[in-house]
Amino acid sequence: MTSTASLVHHALEHFFIETPSWGYTDTGTRFGKFHQPAAAINMGDKLADAGQVHRLTGCCPKVATHVLWDFPDLSKASEVAALAAQHGVRIGSINPNVFQDQEYKLGSVANPDEKIRARATKHICDCIDLGKELHSRAVSLWFADGTNYPGQDSIRARKHRFEYALREAHDRLDNDQVLLVEYKPFEPAFYQTDLADWGMAYMMSKIAGPRAKVLVDTGHHYLSQNIEQIVAWLLDENMLGGFHFNDRRYADDDLTLGSIDPYQIFRIFHEIHFYAWERGGVYPQIEYMIDQSHNLKPKIEAMIQTVTTAQELYAKAALVDHEAMVKHQAAGRIIDAELCLKKAFNTDVTAAIAAWRTSHELPVDPLEAHRASGYEAKVAAERSQRRIDLVMSTGSSYA
Amino acid sequence: MTSTASLVHHALEHFFIETPSWGYTDTGTRFGKFHQPAAAINMGDKLADAGQVHRLTGCCPKVATHVLWDFPDLSKASEVAALAAQHGVRIGSINPNVFQDQEYKLGSVANPDEKIRARATKHICDCIDLGKELHSRAVSLWFADGTNYPGQDSIRARKHRFEYALREAHDRLDNDQVLLVEYKPFEPAFYQTDLADWGMAYMMSKIAGPRAKVLVDTGHHYLSQNIEQIVAWLLDENMLGGFHFNDRRYADDDLTLGSIDPYQIFRIFHEIHFYAWERGGVYPQIEYMIDQSHNLKPKIEAMIQTVTTAQELYAKAALVDHEAMVKHQAAGRIIDAELCLKKAFNTDVTAAIAAWRTSHELPVDPLEAHRASGYEAKVAAERSQRRIDLVMSTGSSYA
Amino acid sequence: MTSTASLVHHALEHFFIETPSWGYTDTGTRFGKFHQPAAAINMGDKLADAGQVHRLTGCCPKVATHVLWDFPDLSKASEVAALAAQHGVRIGSINPNVFQDQEYKLGSVANPDEKIRARATKHICDCIDLGKELHSRAVSLWFADGTNYPGQDSIRARKHRFEYALREAHDRLDNDQVLLVEYKPFEPAFYQTDLADWGMAYMMSKIAGPRAKVLVDTGHHYLSQNIEQIVAWLLDENMLGGFHFNDRRYADDDLTLGSIDPYQIFRIFHEIHFYAWERGGVYPQIEYMIDQSHNLKPKIEAMIQTVTTAQELYAKAALVDHEAMVKHQAAGRIIDAELCLKKAFNTDVTAAIAAWRTSHELPVDPLEAHRASGYEAKVAAERSQRRIDLVMSTGSSYA
Amino acid sequence: MTSTASLVHHALEHFFIETPSWGYTDTGTRFGKFHQPAAAINMGDKLADAGQVHRLTGCCPKVATHVLWDFPDLSKASEVAALAAQHGVRIGSINPNVFQDQEYKLGSVANPDEKIRARATKHICDCIDLGKELHSRAVSLWFADGTNYPGQDSIRARKHRFEYALREAHDRLDNDQVLLVEYKPFEPAFYQTDLADWGMAYMMSKIAGPRAKVLVDTGHHYLSQNIEQIVAWLLDENMLGGFHFNDRRYADDDLTLGSIDPYQIFRIFHEIHFYAWERGGVYPQIEYMIDQSHNLKPKIEAMIQTVTTAQELYAKAALVDHEAMVKHQAAGRIIDAELCLKKAFNTDVTAAIAAWRTSHELPVDPLEAHRASGYEAKVAAERSQRRIDLVMSTGSSYA
Repeated sequence: MTSTASLVHHALEHFFIETPSWGYTDTGTRFGKFHQPAAAINMGDKLADAGQVHRLTGCCPKVATHVLWDFPDLSKASEVAALAAQHGVRIGSINPNVFQDQEYKLGSVANPDEKIRARATKHICDCIDLGKELHSRAVSLWFADGTNYPGQDSIRARKHRFEYALREAHDRLDNDQVLLVEYKPFEPAFYQTDLADWGMAYMMSKIAGPRAKVLVDTGHHYLSQNIEQIVAWLLDENMLGGFHFNDRRYADDDLTLGSIDPYQIFRIFHEIHFYAWERGGVYPQIEYMIDQSHNLKPKIEAMIQTVTTAQELYAKAALVDHEAMVKHQAAGRIIDAELCLKKAFNTDVTAAIAAWRTSHELPVDPLEAHRASGYEAKVAAERSQRRIDLVMSTGSSYA
Repeated sequence: MTSTASLVHHALEHFFIETPSWGYTDTGTRFGKFHQPAAAINMGDKLADAGQVHRLTGCCPKVATHVLWDFPDLSKASEVAALAAQHGVRIGSINPNVFQDQEYKLGSVANPDEKIRARATKHICDCIDLGKELHSRAVSLWFADGTNYPGQDSIRARKHRFEYALREAHDRLDNDQVLLVEYKPFEPAFYQTDLADWGMAYMMSKIAGPRAKVLVDTGHHYLSQNIEQIVAWLLDENMLGGFHFNDRRYADDDLTLGSIDPYQIFRIFHEIHFYAWERGGVYPQIEYMIDQSHNLKPKIEAMIQTVTTAQELYAKAALVDHEAMVKHQAAGRIIDAELCLKKAFNTDVTAAIAAWRTSHELPVDPLEAHRASGYEAKVAAERSQRRIDLVMSTGSSYA
Repeated sequence: MTSTASLVHHALEHFFIETPSWGYTDTGTRFGKFHQPAAAINMGDKLADAGQVHRLTGCCPKVATHVLWDFPDLSKASEVAALAAQHGVRIGSINPNVFQDQEYKLGSVANPDEKIRARATKHICDCIDLGKELHSRAVSLWFADGTNYPGQDSIRARKHRFEYALREAHDRLDNDQVLLVEYKPFEPAFYQTDLADWGMAYMMSKIAGPRAKVLVDTGHHYLSQNIEQIVAWLLDENMLGGFHFNDRRYADDDLTLGSIDPYQIFRIFHEIHFYAWERGGVYPQIEYMIDQSHNLKPKIEAMIQTVTTAQELYAKAALVDHEAMVKHQAAGRIIDAELCLKKAFNTDVTAAIAAWRTSHELPVDPLEAHRASGYEAKVAAERSQRRIDLVMSTGSSYA
Repeated sequence: MTSTASLVHHALEHFFIETPSWGYTDTGTRFGKFHQPAAAINMGDKLADAGQVHRLTGCCPKVATHVLWDFPDLSKASEVAALAAQHGVRIGSINPNVFQDQEYKLGSVANPDEKIRARATKHICDCIDLGKELHSRAVSLWFADGTNYPGQDSIRARKHRFEYALREAHDRLDNDQVLLVEYKPFEPAFYQTDLADWGMAYMMSKIAGPRAKVLVDTGHHYLSQNIEQIVAWLLDENMLGGFHFNDRRYADDDLTLGSIDPYQIFRIFHEIHFYAWERGGVYPQIEYMIDQSHNLKPKIEAMIQTVTTAQELYAKAALVDHEAMVKHQAAGRIIDAELCLKKAFNTDVTAAIAAWRTSHELPVDPLEAHRASGYEAKVAAERSQRRIDLVMSTGSSYA
């Protein structure tokens, strides 16, 4: 095995990505959804689709779930887990939903109304309990909380309410669970979002307790913000809990990973490999998850594309010659240090990844294999009929 | 009458704003809608609400309409017009909808599929005919067309398709109609939007023909872009067709006007007054329209707030001492020239606006008058019952 | 006294702003400086100009200093202090300069070269000692440190170097000194800045020690970032050390305060008044400083403009009816809560500020008084001659 | 020759890039310059350095010049041309400088003062005459004109002044000259820039006359703006005159090309190849120029890096399978169409470029060859001594 092949093989061996259950269903923008015949209707469909992605890529054994949508009846969680097992996958991170119900109009855990706050916190605690039952490590918290107009609410009061709720949630955790705290600058809150940036998520995690960590969604940053620096700082503080992968140009566009700026994703992965290299090859425990939600591309194909792109960029980042790089850095040789990154990024890793796939009896090209499998046509036919039977709308919507 | 009162009076006498029919219904974000009991259900409700706003403000005699939603049966357009008259308003600008149907997944007039392009163009032409029938001056075009991924389609081919469609639409216009061409940088297209900025809308209007003008939505710009400069240039080229009013911090947030940056709106109005001052007080014909769509604030109250804020900022901008300002400008006295704007902006125009309202037998405080009228409670009761009767969902949605 | 006048009076009584010594000299952009005859040449000039501003506004008793430029000989610090006293002002915050020397090409305290780091840290410690000698409370740290290219240096190693240096600096502080840590997203570093945002400045301050606080420069944020939320969080954590006032549209434009977005500055002040109101009227100790640096406007006039604008917006923010606001907030009455801010912002405080000035025997219009004083013409003549005598260039430069 | 090698060879054969004379001298930011011993002092040095870059890369036969700096005595232009010839290069585009002199404080051709406008226009006409004398095709116009404060000047009056000046300049052109009109959103103007975006440069070029075209500087856009769409539209209108190459994250950072977002540069090149492919392989006449100006990297090395990166990305973009792509586009196969770009971008073109270089007797690795040549050490020694002889400052500066 060449050095490139060996480094790539080593990198891919420990690189697993959760796919999200909601990534298999029809989603869209506030201007409407475009329906796909093959889109998943229920949790069984989502798990089947996730199973298909894992079968072809070998790196997606777990499925991130949205409790409200995927576990309508919490008492039957074990049945869902069994269903997952049938499809060759396991339940991954648990995502509470505290943004959708009408009560959450003015927020969930930061709502001015104490009863609504209590309800939201209870839902989060229920999700933590579900995680215990399913032996799922991560509970992943995204809050839409914020305000739309100056003066609408007290920013500090909302901060205090968050502190209270997150402490309560943290108290509920088992020792093998982690609480991932996500941040996002805006949408759906348009004046201020309570957890708007990494600094707020970091501070809130510190206040919550030692098993709370920050979740970095690659699409949740201000324009021009340096994401890899945030990743490097969080790694250094042992506060990086996980990622939500997607790409964007403008806002939280939720496009497939690396479709807009692949070099940025490469640099993020570089920070992780570099950190591990300095620790003698010990990698931190990071939850890698996908969160993409548009539906112009076929859902499963889009998922496979993000997974394989993530592997490709993670593999390239593993090729950086750290030893040479740190020498150049110490000596202030800017171009030479930069070229260590450029060279790795420009390396063609197709053959090396193919070799890794072959070694795991996986198809060399998962996208082609998926297309050749006939899976999509099969489920499209069955699900289209089911939609008719269920009298489901496939018409237009507008938010 | 003091000079301030006189200038304010004069300004408000010619300042009319269309309210949008869709601004009275429940709308939201891709994360869901929050329902209001008083939200309009059908076109009758929308026109009644628009009538209420006009009755209280005296400056909103027309209602902008979305054809797909407001005229489901084009053959009955005159009935809608009659209904509007009953509520004391008229039908204003006509807005085709070529973004919502499933066919428009890859675009409307720029779709790669010729049949879909033809269908979209036909809908626009139907809207133009509707405008003729209703004696409505403006047909207002917003296109969601664009692509989400690099390479997805040919940017130049899409441009050509736009040229073709807009020429066809322009050919259909009567002499007293105008075609307003709107631009928007992104959403729902996340790689490129076909008409992304004012330059593209300007070029396309020029290609379409002499009765095509540019429509400026105050929320459709890149961050930090100078909107008043665009307005000044379009005025100078006689290419400013109209406005969609709203405010924003981040993207196309669709908040009430002036809630985030009132000084910017003032500066836009200043460019218009300044332009008219140089032409001996002759104001250009501009369609002032509101386009705001969120629903945390009560719908009618939010509309009144935007209308009265627009009046207030338009009135303040009328107070700029143009004669002094141009002297300072010519002499390079930056601070003095700037203070001409600042002084006008800082003037309290409450009393002058109150006087104008009184002179028109309007309530001095339209928001208070609306609240005192009991209108909202009344329609909320009636519409809530109607929703039950119609078995309409008021539950949660997610795009 | 009316309620407005009383609230304004009360607010202005405790509101003092430092003017920066470097704000009186010729500065510019990388495309060159435009020279003003009246610009200060040496520290005596700067202190004289600062004295003029304080004499006219009554609220600028202290002068922020840049040690490298203002104290070329640290052993003669007391002479500078005496000179300040002659001009009716005192030495305010001490600003080390660790960005200008050739050695700092790759950074100061984060430089890969240990010797350069030591030199930078020593300069900071010297500045702290200077602060002790001059009884100046604040040592204000802005770092240009960062990298221009991916891979150029280790982000984490640079973070560690910062931790070390800031701890050392903190150890040097007297009990009555504070260390203010500033952040800035970019410029002059264009790939990553070591202290790029409030979260990094916050974390670094926490690591440095209890007398380190965050310094908020109003021009140092990502586009669309909510500055008042950062202020509110820092207040809540008792970590807000001070402000650098200026305004901007695009980047760190360093324009006069409130020239672009006055409502935003108002909202920042609102957070401070609101915080104090909840603590029974006890205001936190915050260093208010100006940092503006362009030179199209006459330097002293620009300074007076920023000072009086700050007073005006601080006064308006003091008018918010907090009691009513919190009730509306608790009840979710968004518009009513918002109007508490809007109403205060729209109030004309000219007369109330004039009354406060009169009560302190200050000119009612400091800008007019400055112009009437003949100060600028006088110093312009003297300084122009001095430039000739010193053979100083007033030609063009380019960075 | 393989297909890849052949396509790359064909692409590089017609791809020439001008290097800028000012890119070989010490430049910096408003926070100061970092001096390099090897930086060029005078025009002879700049031409020698440009000769070195061309000797090693074979694709930079021309040097863009800044008239004010490079032709202090216009009557001796032929001597400069002769000097260029000695170094194996020619004089390329002519860049007037109408931003640096003290008179231009309030603008050049848009200055409120007619005499200053006339002076600026005369300088531009002199530059056009210089271009005639030197048989240089392009006169390249960048204007710093704009205002820093709302109200400072009339935006429309400034537009009119621009129209007048550009018409006058256009009248002066020979038939084989072109006028390139550049745009930039901000810096050094911070409220509005007169030619702020491509739409303004386009409109102004149209007004100037048929030999005026738009110049796209890759660093002069709003954040998130889609540059390749602008390029595609300008190509389609036959209005794309040329490029200034550099890269950026935040503002006009002037970093080496492709250092931050190489995929974006690739996509720009793709639009050009795609346009030419549709025209039967006929490429439009575009002036490719470099405009990068920082000085952390050694000047000549940074220039070589940008040149070779441009070649690499231009070569990769030549590999897109246009035939397959347009079929996928027509059929709405988003992923397949996108993969046509991705596949080309991910192809390793190192060997193909090496082959092209060998075929032209150029070094396979220009950067290594430059380092091996000893050129930098030699000129550093000579120029350092010359600086001492000329008593030139190498100390710190601050704008």
